[in-house]
Amino acid sequence: MSEFFYYQTVPIEFGVGKLQNLPDIIRERGYHKGLLITTKSIVANGIAERVVAESGGLITDFTYGIQPNPTVQNTDNCIEVLRSGKYDFAVALGGGSVLDCAKVATALAPTTATTQRFFDGEFVLTEPGLPLIAVPTTAGTASEITRVSVLSDPVSGRKRPFNSPFLYPVYALIDPLLTMSCNKKVTASSGIDVLAHSLEALYSKLHQPFTDLFAKHAASLVFRYLQTAYDEPDNVEARTKMAEASVAAGMAFNITQTAAAHACSYPLTEMLDIPHGEACAFTLPNFWVLNAQDEVEGARLQEISRELGFRDAAHLAERVEELKQHLELRMSLQEIGVETEEQLQQIVEASFAPNIHNNPVTLTKESLYAFYKSI
Amino acid sequence: MSEFFYYQTVPIEFGVGKLQNLPDIIRERGYHKGLLITTKSIVANGIAERVVAESGGLITDFTYGIQPNPTVQNTDNCIEVLRSGKYDFAVALGGGSVLDCAKVATALAPTTATTQRFFDGEFVLTEPGLPLIAVPTTAGTASEITRVSVLSDPVSGRKRPFNSPFLYPVYALIDPLLTMSCNKKVTASSGIDVLAHSLEALYSKLHQPFTDLFAKHAASLVFRYLQTAYDEPDNVEARTKMAEASVAAGMAFNITQTAAAHACSYPLTEMLDIPHGEACAFTLPNFWVLNAQDEVEGARLQEISRELGFRDAAHLAERVEELKQHLELRMSLQEIGVETEEQLQQIVEASFAPNIHNNPVTLTKESLYAFYKSI
Ligand SMILES: NC(=O)c1ccc[n+]([C@@H]2O[C@H](COP(=O)([O-])OP(=O)(O)OC[C@H]3O[C@@H](n4cnc5c(N)ncnc54)[C@H](O)[C@@H]3O)[C@@H](O)[C@H]2O)c1
Ligand SMILES: NC(=O)c1ccc[n+]([C@@H]2O[C@H](COP(=O)([O-])OP(=O)(O)OC[C@H]3O[C@@H](n4cnc5c(N)ncnc54)[C@H](O)[C@@H]3O)[C@@H](O)[C@H]2O)c1
Ligand SMILES: [Zn+2]
Ligand SMILES: [Zn+2]
Repeated sequence: MSEFFYYQTVPIEFGVGKLQNLPDIIRERGYHKGLLITTKSIVANGIAERVVAESGGLITDFTYGIQPNPTVQNTDNCIEVLRSGKYDFAVALGGGSVLDCAKVATALAPTTATTQRFFDGEFVLTEPGLPLIAVPTTAGTASEITRVSVLSDPVSGRKRPFNSPFLYPVYALIDPLLTMSCNKKVTASSGIDVLAHSLEALYSKLHQPFTDLFAKHAASLVFRYLQTAYDEPDNVEARTKMAEASVAAGMAFNITQTAAAHACSYPLTEMLDIPHGEACAFTLPNFWVLNAQDEVEGARLQEISRELGFRDAAHLAERVEELKQHLELRMSLQEIGVETEEQLQQIVEASFAPNIHNNPVTLTKESLYAFYKSI
Repeated sequence: MSEFFYYQTVPIEFGVGKLQNLPDIIRERGYHKGLLITTKSIVANGIAERVVAESGGLITDFTYGIQPNPTVQNTDNCIEVLRSGKYDFAVALGGGSVLDCAKVATALAPTTATTQRFFDGEFVLTEPGLPLIAVPTTAGTASEITRVSVLSDPVSGRKRPFNSPFLYPVYALIDPLLTMSCNKKVTASSGIDVLAHSLEALYSKLHQPFTDLFAKHAASLVFRYLQTAYDEPDNVEARTKMAEASVAAGMAFNITQTAAAHACSYPLTEMLDIPHGEACAFTLPNFWVLNAQDEVEGARLQEISRELGFRDAAHLAERVEELKQHLELRMSLQEIGVETEEQLQQIVEASFAPNIHNNPVTLTKESLYAFYKSI
């Protein structure tokens, strides 16, 4: 019999042009001195400066230079700025990389911890940090409403997600217009990431009725609008629907967590520099089919495939392959640069992040290796 | 283009047998001395005493005597017990009436206000009151997750909803087993209330994508399981699905608010003693059809009717009538005891609670009178 625990704590303000409400949001919450944490492209297109200028003095500075797949060092830099500037809040304006980095940085800023100690599990968050207003510029990670941040540690070559109730932003402001400047590559990769969040939420061991609702909604929006957002970058409707899909998927995977496709993505990104969404999509259709053969979840996943308009799980997976092709994402081991057995072995070894245990079908190094060979 | 604000703050723990987790929930939150606010039937069946006994000393007393459609006086009594006993939290265990009363009582307990001043709008909540853990025993109101309480004032003969962010319980514990003892009348009335919340959320002026998701899910569960819950009171699956439907509908109407069918229900309950859900259902199918003719919302409501498996809005309304018949709910003015034109005029006059303005089709006294004549 179904049982579940559902919790969603971040207020979500969504709509075309909503960025202009930012100063009011800051004022209503009574904050005084804010730092804007952003990224080069948002500085280059003038939005960062405009946000500071229009904040009525509430945001005094901005910082950027966070790289895609943010590192421990990126986060430490951000913490340094927050600590030295005596800010009482921050606004993160960027893709998942900026949001994830800002979430950890604001959480750690009032402590004496370094990001490395947090990454290594030596420092655990026990109270809220500086409040963060999160404003995404991609339709992808939903990091603006989740308690997840993904960080990379170039020293150990590891990338992994961190979960904490103290990583929630205090407010999510989602303006689909901000995603219009994403180039095709970013639109494709972040868009297919939304599908990965949806399908992984559906087969996650922690799925539940309300996350299923959101995940199915998100998946069907991606199937309907991602190609258009890719083909017509200026199509406001497609951009808006993809932004809605992203946050809807977040309402699901924030609770269910991600599973095998995400766990496998981390080494693909770290070792082969594949963008996050593309890396998740690499194994996604195959994991959908594999999990649809699971004794416990299989029938349910076949049924969900039908509800989403497909004949069965395999048919849904075919549609994902088709979509990947349309989005010009890489689809073979050769294309992503895996040339030797040894390389593949290394990738398999590095795929056992905690979320792989959230996959309904249990994976071992042997079975994952065989799985990769079948792609 | 779609825009919305979504917020849901109450953690929801749901499942058969979950009542036994109550002591842990209290302990985890660090509370010390609690009052159980409940109702006669829950005292009579021994559950109230068991909850106190199993709380490990954390719940020291219980109070009951709250009547269906709780009054200003019921709430004052509850406040009195809370104030004099120096409790630091409360647990509400009962139907919507108990939950609504306990929500206002815990909100007002730390203040010096009377419920009458709150009812009359002379006292406005500005901060959280005593924390309340809400445990529903009906599948109906979803009061355990909403910021709404409905109170009646016998002096003025008025009943109306109050909305405040300070009326949220701190935790919703939903154990479908608790609803098994509801008699047929309560099952029917609270169950059809869930449908009223769903359909009103769908046509509410404040509908948005995420509330639509929840409302459609809730409505389809009601269409599928309410008759079974009514015919077979011991059917755990049907009871569980109705409990899920109730909370799902709450995730919708907590945001959208209710509309004309609820506004019209208040005088039917106050003047003619019709139970809440039955009173809402009295006009519900007709409002669905009326609103489906609205210029702005009509096409959308026709489309939703089809998504829910009906040919059109009229066909959905027919199914609601059929369901009402099956549940032995009253369906004509005569059956509910409206015998004179004057009586009907009085009912129409008293139907203009604030939520009637949330109806897409604007209603005037004249048009509402004509609407009633057509039922
Ligand atoms: N926190 C979570 O729950 C979660 C979930 C999934 C992924 N992630 C992580 O998020 C990261 C990926 O985030 P992403 O997919 O949003 O991409 P991203 O933030 O890494 O951005 C990719 C590139 O697009 C640029 N960009 C972003 N917005 C733009 C815009 N509006 N116009 C022009 N350029 C823009 C960035 O500057 C960057 O160069 C990964 O590290 C991934 O692991 C986190
Ligand atoms: N707060 C909200 O958002 C909201 C929404 C809709 C309705 N309401 C209000 O809630 C009230 C109706 O609540 P309701 O429909 O849950 O009914 P109720 O709480 O009035 O209970 C109806 C009867 O059923 C009995 N009962 C309840 N649970 C029982 C159980 N498990 N076993 C046996 N008997 C049981 C009660 O003692 C009572 O006699 C109305 O006042 C209505 O206006 C509030
Ligand atoms: Zn992802
Ligand atoms: Zn109701």
